[in-house]
Parts: sequence; structure tokens; C-alpha cells
Amino acid sequence: MSEIYVHGYHPRENERLQDQAGTLVDLLHSDTGYPAGSTVLEAGCGVGSQTVTLAQRSPGARFTSVDISADSIAEAKRKAALAGLTNVEFRHTDIFAMPFGTESFDHVFVCFVLEHLTQPVEALAILNSLLRPGGSITVIEGDHGSAYFYPDSPAARAAIQCQVKLQRKAGGNALVGRQLYPLMIEAGFDAVRVSPRMVYVDSSRPDLVDGFTRRTFTAMIEGIRETAIAACLIEPESFDAGVQDLHRTTEADGVFCYTFFKGVGKKRRRA
Amino acid sequence: MSEIYVHGYHPRENERLQDQAGTLVDLLHSDTGYPAGSTVLEAGCGVGSQTVTLAQRSPGARFTSVDISADSIAEAKRKAALAGLTNVEFRHTDIFAMPFGTESFDHVFVCFVLEHLTQPVEALAILNSLLRPGGSITVIEGDHGSAYFYPDSPAARAAIQCQVKLQRKAGGNALVGRQLYPLMIEAGFDAVRVSPRMVYVDSSRPDLVDGFTRRTFTAMIEGIRETAIAACLIEPESFDAGVQDLHRTTEADGVFCYTFFKGVGKKRRRA
Repeated sequence: MSEIYVHGYHPRENERLQDQAGTLVDLLHSDTGYPAGSTVLEAGCGVGSQTVTLAQRSPGARFTSVDISADSIAEAKRKAALAGLTNVEFRHTDIFAMPFGTESFDHVFVCFVLEHLTQPVEALAILNSLLRPGGSITVIEGDHGSAYFYPDSPAARAAIQCQVKLQRKAGGNALVGRQLYPLMIEAGFDAVRVSPRMVYVDSSRPDLVDGFTRRTFTAMIEGIRETAIAACLIEPESFDAGVQDLHRTTEADGVFCYTFFKGVGKKRRRA
Repeated sequence: MSEIYVHGYHPRENERLQDQAGTLVDLLHSDTGYPAGSTVLEAGCGVGSQTVTLAQRSPGARFTSVDISADSIAEAKRKAALAGLTNVEFRHTDIFAMPFGTESFDHVFVCFVLEHLTQPVEALAILNSLLRPGGSITVIEGDHGSAYFYPDSPAARAAIQCQVKLQRKAGGNALVGRQLYPLMIEAGFDAVRVSPRMVYVDSSRPDLVDGFTRRTFTAMIEGIRETAIAACLIEPESFDAGVQDLHRTTEADGVFCYTFFKGVGKKRRRA
């Protein structure tokens, strides 16, 4: 897998992913739990932001969390140890070359991974092959085209569009959230149900203003400044005006909306 | 009030509003109910699409439903009679010149009205003055900037943008949903809480594919074809391509997303 992870691997990014998991945890994970004794593959665990939540919510399940980045796996292990987790095994491996036999897992969990893949259907089909018949897959993805806000701002939209273009150049898809249903169907899953998880932020919810609008979404856009400018996608002044307008949405009369999509499907049982 | 209602008043529009209320009724109204004996002003009832739902869900409350269009009031009366409603009185009046004393109502309900008003804050402030202290207001609005879909299509986005521009030319605001919170705060309401009501449609929900994507949203865009072309907002071929791409989202692998916003606030009690 030669995918480029456009968000980068630097410490601030790490912190951003942590913030994201911290403020969105209920919205994204409250309806995910695995029975005691079941085995769960977390494909693309990154620095373990979701792993800790997952494993704590299903203390009797056994997790195998894999990632293509050795550095991320090291950080995820550190985080799991700090949280005192004893039900997670970490493995450094590529989704497209996994050292597991077919039908080795009861469940699969994938979060913020498909957006980075050139071949999302192929990846899902591999994960499908690793599932026992009747087992479940859970997929969570964002969609940067789902971001809108008050005051509206063409400059802010242009800055966000830079992220969409960079991710496309890297072979990924920042608009993958809306596409979960057809991708999961095409990969052969059964009983697919997708539900949107909208983050609505106004100043009556100061924790979300800070935790989501400012420190998750706007911080992510701020983080691609140099890359977007170097790729000639935007002029520095335009980008900075866009970021300023994103910060404007955190004021008392501002509103920010973003939607994650969560898809659940089943591995077909044998006929 | 000299607002122009851009959706028009023809029979097909009437039918569209009816379809909209039929398929979205739970999403929009399930958490609205008024106690027996309370008085409710429905401001801008149009052809009564919401009135029937409202009055049936709160059979002990007494509704006064008003609209600026005499034709719409006539149609709303017909609909209420057909539904056997006995707890609704209809009045033909303008929100900006209402024949009610201050603090005459326990509750106010406004649905799909602010989007058409040049002065939404002033309208809300008038409605506030008609409420008894401690009474509630409920406001529901769409937001056409919240529409996105798979496959994505610049042509479809351009066709939708025509509707946004026409509504703006008419003095309205097709993006008002995201703005409910600041509008309600500015109008002086207390304890304002806005919640998004997202309509997520994929082919596992055929009732929504037909009832919402096709017969509500796409039908609305189709309905502005002549007006948009006459206003030189778009070439006929581009508009038609956009509509075709909206229909494309109703196929087996298509997805369509739209969000309504529901705001609830309280009239301040006297200090």
C-alpha cells in the first residue's frame, strides 16, 4: 500500500486526532460494542485514538489493531499502555498484505482510513474475506464537502477545497463519507446501513466550538497551509483569509456544521 | 409584507409541499407537542401542510394558523376540514401586521417561513411580542447549501445555486437553516437550542429516494427551470444536466443528503 497520509505524522497532527476522538467519542462510538470473547480487527488504527475508546467500551473483546506506519503503532502502544488496556494486540502491517487467514475475525472496525486509500473497495473486500460469516464491519469516515457554516465564506470554502484537492492528488478522497453505502455494497457486504453523525456547533455548545470547530476542523485546514501553497492550489493571502473566516464561525453568532458517516454491514452467510 | 414566495403557488408546488410533509413528518415534528388548553400561533401556515400534523399531534391545544396568501388559507381550510380538525382557526393576515394583542399566545410555531423574509429578525421579534412570558417558539427551516450527494456533480450544484440566487433576489435566504441560532438570539429569545434534522437517503430507503430526493428536492429544483433561465442565471442545457445529475443520485448506488434545522426558544420571563 503506497498511500500518502495527507494529514501528516507530526506531533500537532497527533494531538489533533486526539482532540477529535475526545470530543466526538459519543457521537461516533456510543453504538459500537462487541461481546465478550469476540475477536475484532481494527484496520488502520493510526496512533490509537479510537483504539482506547473501542477497547474500553468492549473490555471482554480481544482487539487486533494494525497500521501501516511503525511510528503510529509505537505511539498507539504507548497510549494503550497508559490507558491500562490488556485486550489489544498491535501489529505493524499493510491492509493489502495482512498476515491473517480468511475468516479469522468476528468483527472488523475501520475509522478514518478509506479516505486515504486509492482502492477503497478492494480494501473493504479484503476485510470482508477476513470476517467470519455473519460477522460485522463498522466503517466511519468524514466528508469535507459536508462542512458549511455561518457566516458563509467563499474564502473558507476555497481553503477547505485545498484539502479536498490535496487528498485527491495523494490518491485519497476527502468526500468519501457520502459514498460509504455504495462502497460497502460493492465490496459485497450484506444488510448495509449507513447513518450520518452530524456535528452541529453554535455558541451554546462552547466545548464543541473549541474542541471541534477550532481545534479539530480549523486546525486540520491550518495544517495544510504550506503544502497547499507549495502545490500552487491557492495564494497565501486567500488561504489565510479562509482560515480567518473559519475562526470567525467560532464567534458568538457563528455556526459550524460537519457530518461523519457510520456504516455497518454483515459478512454474507454461506448459502 | 411584500415578500415574493419563490416556490410559486401552482398545484404541483402544493403537491410537493404535501409530499414533503408526508415523508419528513416524523423527522421534523415528532418532538413537538402542546398541552391541552394551550394556545398556539402558527405563523405562515401556507396550504396547511404542517397544520394538519401539528393539530393532530396536539388535539387538546387550540391553533390559530395565519398566512399572507388568501388562496393558501382557502386550501389550508379545505385540508383541515378533510382531516376533521376542530382545533384550528385560520386567519388571513401578514406577519408584520397581525391583529393580535401582545402576549396572546402560549406558543408560536413557524415552519419554512423565515427563508422567504427580508427581515427575519424583525418577524421573530414580533412573534416574541405575541408570546406570553415563558412561552415557547419553534422554528423549522431548510438550508439548500446543506445538499450534497453521490455522485457529486458541479452541474447539479449549479442548478441548486440558481434556487439560492432566486431566493436572494426575492429578498429571502435559502441558507437560513444554519443561521437559526443567531437569528433567534438576536430576536431576544431565551434558552435557544437548535438541532439539525438530516435527511440521509440511499437506496436502502426507497421511500425517501422517491419521497424526498425525487419528489421533494429535485422536483423543487425542476420547478424553477423557466424562472432561472429567464433571469439569465444559467443556460438551459446546464440546468437540465444538473437536474439529470440530481436524478442520477436516485439510482442504486446514489446518495443524497439534506439538512433541516429546528430551533426552540423561550420568551423571557419578566425580571
